[in-house]
Amino acid sequence: MIDKSTLALFGNRPHFEKPVACHALFWPSQDEYRAMFRDIFERQYYTNHGPLAQALEQALAERLQVRHAICVTNEFIGLAMLAQALDLAGPVLVPAHASIKTVQSLDWAQVQPVFCDVNPETGMLDARHAAPWLEKHAIGAILGVNAWGGACDLPGLTQLARSADIPFYLDSSQGFGSLVDGTPLGGFGHAEVLSFHADHILNAGEGGVICTQDDALAARIRNIRSNYGMGPSVPVKKTGNGRLSEAQAALALYGLKRIPEYLGHHRRIRAFYAAGLRGIPGISLFQAPGVSLSNDQNLIVQVSAHLLGLSRDELCRFLRTENIMAETGYFQPPGLTPCSLYAESIEDHPHADHFGQTVLELPMHHSLDEAAIAFITGAIEWAHRHAGEIRERLRSSP
Amino acid sequence: MIDKSTLALFGNRPHFEKPVACHALFWPSQDEYRAMFRDIFERQYYTNHGPLAQALEQALAERLQVRHAICVTNEFIGLAMLAQALDLAGPVLVPAHASIKTVQSLDWAQVQPVFCDVNPETGMLDARHAAPWLEKHAIGAILGVNAWGGACDLPGLTQLARSADIPFYLDSSQGFGSLVDGTPLGGFGHAEVLSFHADHILNAGEGGVICTQDDALAARIRNIRSNYGMGPSVPVKKTGNGRLSEAQAALALYGLKRIPEYLGHHRRIRAFYAAGLRGIPGISLFQAPGVSLSNDQNLIVQVSAHLLGLSRDELCRFLRTENIMAETGYFQPPGLTPCSLYAESIEDHPHADHFGQTVLELPMHHSLDEAAIAFITGAIEWAHRHAGEIRERLRSSP
Repeated sequence: MIDKSTLALFGNRPHFEKPVACHALFWPSQDEYRAMFRDIFERQYYTNHGPLAQALEQALAERLQVRHAICVTNEFIGLAMLAQALDLAGPVLVPAHASIKTVQSLDWAQVQPVFCDVNPETGMLDARHAAPWLEKHAIGAILGVNAWGGACDLPGLTQLARSADIPFYLDSSQGFGSLVDGTPLGGFGHAEVLSFHADHILNAGEGGVICTQDDALAARIRNIRSNYGMGPSVPVKKTGNGRLSEAQAALALYGLKRIPEYLGHHRRIRAFYAAGLRGIPGISLFQAPGVSLSNDQNLIVQVSAHLLGLSRDELCRFLRTENIMAETGYFQPPGLTPCSLYAESIEDHPHADHFGQTVLELPMHHSLDEAAIAFITGAIEWAHRHAGEIRERLRSSP
Repeated sequence: MIDKSTLALFGNRPHFEKPVACHALFWPSQDEYRAMFRDIFERQYYTNHGPLAQALEQALAERLQVRHAICVTNEFIGLAMLAQALDLAGPVLVPAHASIKTVQSLDWAQVQPVFCDVNPETGMLDARHAAPWLEKHAIGAILGVNAWGGACDLPGLTQLARSADIPFYLDSSQGFGSLVDGTPLGGFGHAEVLSFHADHILNAGEGGVICTQDDALAARIRNIRSNYGMGPSVPVKKTGNGRLSEAQAALALYGLKRIPEYLGHHRRIRAFYAAGLRGIPGISLFQAPGVSLSNDQNLIVQVSAHLLGLSRDELCRFLRTENIMAETGYFQPPGLTPCSLYAESIEDHPHADHFGQTVLELPMHHSLDEAAIAFITGAIEWAHRHAGEIRERLRSSP
């Protein structure tokens, strides 16, 4: 039973002894991981497209149903090298609330972003909002973002890019395991980049993969990624080192076998949240749009301050006093949105701005059980009923 | 005793059953590495400047006597992010035989290379060869390369850059453990980048570190490396993800404790080579220039075809028939020198061209003992005495 006498904001100990992050890697079986590592040491082959990196690329190509799965040391490098391989002729259209990593990958390939508002229902890029920009600017490509286990308007944007004869590619950082009419994210557009950061359902500590069905594009990406060191040499304007090491590949191969287990865990956690949040005014559980099955990796709610009685940021601060490490957006200093870095205002993109101001991510940490989630949702419900007291207390706290 | 009846080129089995590469990581104690990995899993902290990455940065700063040691996922990323952080105003002077990774790091920061010949004795950049280019072009920086455990002309180039008021920075990929008058490579110029690739004395599978004494430069590098995610936020033109993961940091921390042991091993191997190669016409053992102590990581000989009776490439092919995987240069497709990528000819830089055509790297693999090296040097001596037969046999082999 939650009441003031138990809450940290009112002088008690936090409910969770240690901070509960939004994400944490599922615990691997140390025996299995240890055996993989022993093999790495015995082969004395630590990087440069070693046997584990090759096995991972093959397994990913099969699972994601793509001709080419090209692993990279992190998703940012993948996006920058892909933008370079696409050899773009003009600025790139991106959703106005894309993460800094997504937007700034373009700078390294010497192309500029053009920010576009998103669909007010899905929070993602769609053809209706993108089309006017293609007419106004000489857009060189569309870079969609498949966020929160969902997808942007894949059919509409594919069609729009085709009729403009420009590439359409995707940052699917959070997309591993989601399906669109049964087809895995990874095979859409000219190419997709998926992340294996430790926060994601499939992780390699750091890591990622560029997926494409286009043989010529894949050959250019491989030459760029490995300083001409992999596969037949084709001319490219510049190269670099984006290789995934064997230690990273071992972690990802371990996780790949357990995806069904992880998906099931996400689904159970999500159901507990759905039950606990139902009926709390001002809190709506976000449904991943555009997919037939979501990986449910991100537990996103939208907060209506008017109905809840507290703003999104106030609710976030309250939850954090209990060590519930809710997140209000991609990690960047306050006020530093990608738009502002290019001297633009997010307010010119009202739907993206609205999502940026109302979205809250709650923990999908593997250690959570039904009781833990009942506490989190109970605390939110209590916050609604005692909004005034909480606001006053927050004002007087630093 | 080496004679035709024992040699692979004449139909026998190779002396070494498996290929002996120029480099291989020293074998770590699995118990110790396993313990570090267990801790990573227990902390569930895999990347994002975790405790091992922090411990590594601190240990490196102490050992290399620098204010800032900023770890990165590989050396190429370090060079590209450093070039970006230096905010260069013009093209960058590089030695004409620099590796493709070194030269192309500049393209990602949108600056062009200007190729410069090297000192004919040391094979490295010096002030005498660099100075005329500074007058001819509006050079924005000098990028020296400290290769093969030695150093370029650090005093002369430091002075030259200071008088031209431009940055002087260093690719010290192969420099870890070398000393200049007792001071470790890492602390020279505006910044140095060292590599922890698996081929190097200190390795993290892939990895590297940017070292600098300049607080403002370090703050810019940290913001670029981690999408504004580390340390106080300072304005930079673009950011990315160049983070070193905990798994990489664990390998490097392991190796760092064993550097004296590895240096001793290199020294013993080098002494065996020196004894065996002494007196073979046309073979000179390269002495790392510009350092008071070399890490002896690269065993380089220069081949005079006229005196040896075989060209450098013929000797290399002969050694490879015995599974001695000698190397003739940085890994890139034949004919693809960095110069040629920028429509320049290496022949315009005769000393660099000469080094590129005469240098041969021999194995410094940890598994080699005195007998193995006696075979390698004996085979080279035999090749000198039977140059005609070898050349004829190589001509008829594919």
